[in-house]
Amino acid sequence: MSSNPPMHFPCLDKLDKKSKSLVDEGPEPVYARVQSGFEMYRSEKPLFLDYGGYLPEFNIAYETWGKLNSDKSNAILLHTGLSASSHAKSQAKNLKPGWWEAFIGPNKPLDTNNFFIICTNVIGGCYGSTGPSSIDPSDSQRYATRFPIISITDMVRAQNRLISGHLKIKKLYATVGASMGGMQCLAYANEYSEQINKIVSISGCARSHPHSIAMRFCQRQVLMNDPNWNRGFYYDLIPPHVGMKLSRQIATITYRSGPEWEQRFARSRLDPSLKPALCPDFLVETYLDHQGEKFSLEFDPNSLLYISKAMDLFDLGLGNKLKTLEARNQSSILFTKFNNHFQDFDNLGFKNNDNCSLPSEPYKENINSQKDHELTKEESLEDIINGLSGISNHDSLVIGVKSDILFPSFQQKEIADVLKINQQRSNLNDSNIKYVELGEDISMYGHDTFLLDVEHVGGEIKKFLHKI
Amino acid sequence: MSSNPPMHFPCLDKLDKKSKSLVDEGPEPVYARVQSGFEMYRSEKPLFLDYGGYLPEFNIAYETWGKLNSDKSNAILLHTGLSASSHAKSQAKNLKPGWWEAFIGPNKPLDTNNFFIICTNVIGGCYGSTGPSSIDPSDSQRYATRFPIISITDMVRAQNRLISGHLKIKKLYATVGASMGGMQCLAYANEYSEQINKIVSISGCARSHPHSIAMRFCQRQVLMNDPNWNRGFYYDLIPPHVGMKLSRQIATITYRSGPEWEQRFARSRLDPSLKPALCPDFLVETYLDHQGEKFSLEFDPNSLLYISKAMDLFDLGLGNKLKTLEARNQSSILFTKFNNHFQDFDNLGFKNNDNCSLPSEPYKENINSQKDHELTKEESLEDIINGLSGISNHDSLVIGVKSDILFPSFQQKEIADVLKINQQRSNLNDSNIKYVELGEDISMYGHDTFLLDVEHVGGEIKKFLHKI
Repeated sequence: MSSNPPMHFPCLDKLDKKSKSLVDEGPEPVYARVQSGFEMYRSEKPLFLDYGGYLPEFNIAYETWGKLNSDKSNAILLHTGLSASSHAKSQAKNLKPGWWEAFIGPNKPLDTNNFFIICTNVIGGCYGSTGPSSIDPSDSQRYATRFPIISITDMVRAQNRLISGHLKIKKLYATVGASMGGMQCLAYANEYSEQINKIVSISGCARSHPHSIAMRFCQRQVLMNDPNWNRGFYYDLIPPHVGMKLSRQIATITYRSGPEWEQRFARSRLDPSLKPALCPDFLVETYLDHQGEKFSLEFDPNSLLYISKAMDLFDLGLGNKLKTLEARNQSSILFTKFNNHFQDFDNLGFKNNDNCSLPSEPYKENINSQKDHELTKEESLEDIINGLSGISNHDSLVIGVKSDILFPSFQQKEIADVLKINQQRSNLNDSNIKYVELGEDISMYGHDTFLLDVEHVGGEIKKFLHKI
Repeated sequence: MSSNPPMHFPCLDKLDKKSKSLVDEGPEPVYARVQSGFEMYRSEKPLFLDYGGYLPEFNIAYETWGKLNSDKSNAILLHTGLSASSHAKSQAKNLKPGWWEAFIGPNKPLDTNNFFIICTNVIGGCYGSTGPSSIDPSDSQRYATRFPIISITDMVRAQNRLISGHLKIKKLYATVGASMGGMQCLAYANEYSEQINKIVSISGCARSHPHSIAMRFCQRQVLMNDPNWNRGFYYDLIPPHVGMKLSRQIATITYRSGPEWEQRFARSRLDPSLKPALCPDFLVETYLDHQGEKFSLEFDPNSLLYISKAMDLFDLGLGNKLKTLEARNQSSILFTKFNNHFQDFDNLGFKNNDNCSLPSEPYKENINSQKDHELTKEESLEDIINGLSGISNHDSLVIGVKSDILFPSFQQKEIADVLKINQQRSNLNDSNIKYVELGEDISMYGHDTFLLDVEHVGGEIKKFLHKI
């Protein structure tokens, strides 16, 4: 007999049981369900992508609210965050509450009495639009990790086919989005500056910060190391629900903030009469456990990986813009040359990473030489100013939240500053660029503020959009 | 043939290969090696623990530098962070550089011309002191997860047997520590306030913050879900090196800070001519990968779990102090009653968590009712003031770092404020309580500043300790 009692792991027992039930009953994750409740746009033309790949054809799931007016001047394109579907609000085909239910409707911040709101599921996603769980038309198998790397700008290029090609909307009244939606919002304005009037970018950025890249990298690595991930080929097998749960737990930390948790959870344990445990024990742990668990079959793991990577790669600087433009053009030329398909993948814009991209020399700490990358601070600023030079005469609202640790408010400040600099440089001074920062006295909800704070986030949007 | 080339995963290939090599060659992790280079203290008397368990006997590995003077008045007890050994500095028995090499020595911040420095490996650890990889004397098997839950205060109680019991030092000149060492430092002063003169607590806290608990919880969950963890019984099998690597990657993010990474890594990719990859790709990712990899066999996974949990449980408030005191006393009484062993684990101070401690109702978001825990802000402050009331007449130096996201500087400010309040309440005003905050202009190294910044951290320590 041991000196002390052995520890129990009810949280692991539960996951084992869940895995077993998924074998017995077959997986019921999101990609295995019949999905409905949205409109579907289909593009038969190939989409050439920023990092050298392509989609031979693609679908975009979308939903709309309000009415498009006769001159099609009242349309607002609403962009989603990483894991959201096109279902921003309940509507006749899908009565469930949407992810921005309280923000959309008559007299709401996105006022359906005045505006026609369109929301899409991004390419790469798993709620109707083409993503890794879709069938690759070239061999009728699911793409899985044969899906090409996509970028935020690729997402908005796909959206533009729906907006200008299919719906024939020449100019959007506004492009609106938060989080990854705030990225898309700027990317859309940047690609199609003549096709939009106003910009509303909330808790977004003009380029990803290495701290956010690091947090997302950890989430992806945790998922990819779940043996059930099986290098992306898990469709019809047990899905990597444990990796998804762990990944979402980490993500949840980045979505909320410390001051809120001190107030809400402090150091309270669920049941202080129990011996402390390595399974969820503190209230904050049970919260994370629940958030992870409920997400673990609600989203396609491969979609998470591709969209998360797209966020990391986001950089509206001129340098990145030119590189990706070249890759897309090269793919397009080769595609035509080889009679509308690629004969040899080596011909694609970028080399594939057959070898481990790890440096042969391990990383060396050097406190005196911090700058390993190529641009100085000034060059880096100039790069983003030049990259965004197309947006110089649009009314813009940029909202940041001081308690946000994933997209810190200095990133939203950067957007507003850069837009103002471009306005000055272009001598077009009749647009209004507004930066709003919500302090900790207003919101302690960190990155999630955009989902929760109808009063302040919604209020600012409503004021900014006016009546049409 | 697929539309796009399949993706490769060299990082996963590498880990598979490593697992295979560990099967073929047997594990060579830290607990499998013969360890030496330190002194060993052995206590044959049981140690009753804060959460109801006990150690029938225990070892403490320790190292010393400088000379103990004749009246034993020049001893400084140096406490370690989570993963450090007693090897703070090279010495005759172990010539390798220690983890605070530049901080200890003649005329250094911990000046060996004046002071006798003692550093121990904490109980729960894996560098010589008794921990989960040690043999349980009750059945001659390794403890593994039959090791009892320990607290930071348990660690310092074990240290005190070495200091006052074995080395016969009646009063320490100072207790010094950073990170978890900063916690121990306060815990030691709080338990043995008559046995110390000065306190130096760097980047520590008086009680853990739910954000830090959340970050450590994710690290533990990732490790525990590595199938090779095997609920703690992996000794002689393949160790959970993948879980350890992933866990350390997450930890590394909490040790460093955003401003440094923007400057050091920005958005640079290791080889921009390669297609973006899900394996390490951005420079910041290769950095995390390397930090994780190098740690994965260097520390006992079970030690990580137990010590990390001890940090979460850290709370020097009066409420926690009284509860744990009761548990220890109860165990001690029962132990004596049953002839120096426990006949029935149910008699131990706390119930074991046989059932999953998850709430039956899933967590509900409620923006209007944030306070789920029992104490108001004022009661919570009063609790920590009362818990620390024993420390009211000690010269104290508290150092915080503005860029630290794991132990935010407001936590060090809280320590200093509480010490000052107790000084006022006790009417003992002849002690000096100094709070130093290093701004981002001084250090962008976040939590790791204490390991790197000899000039500012070391400089403040040196000034504070004076000549004896």
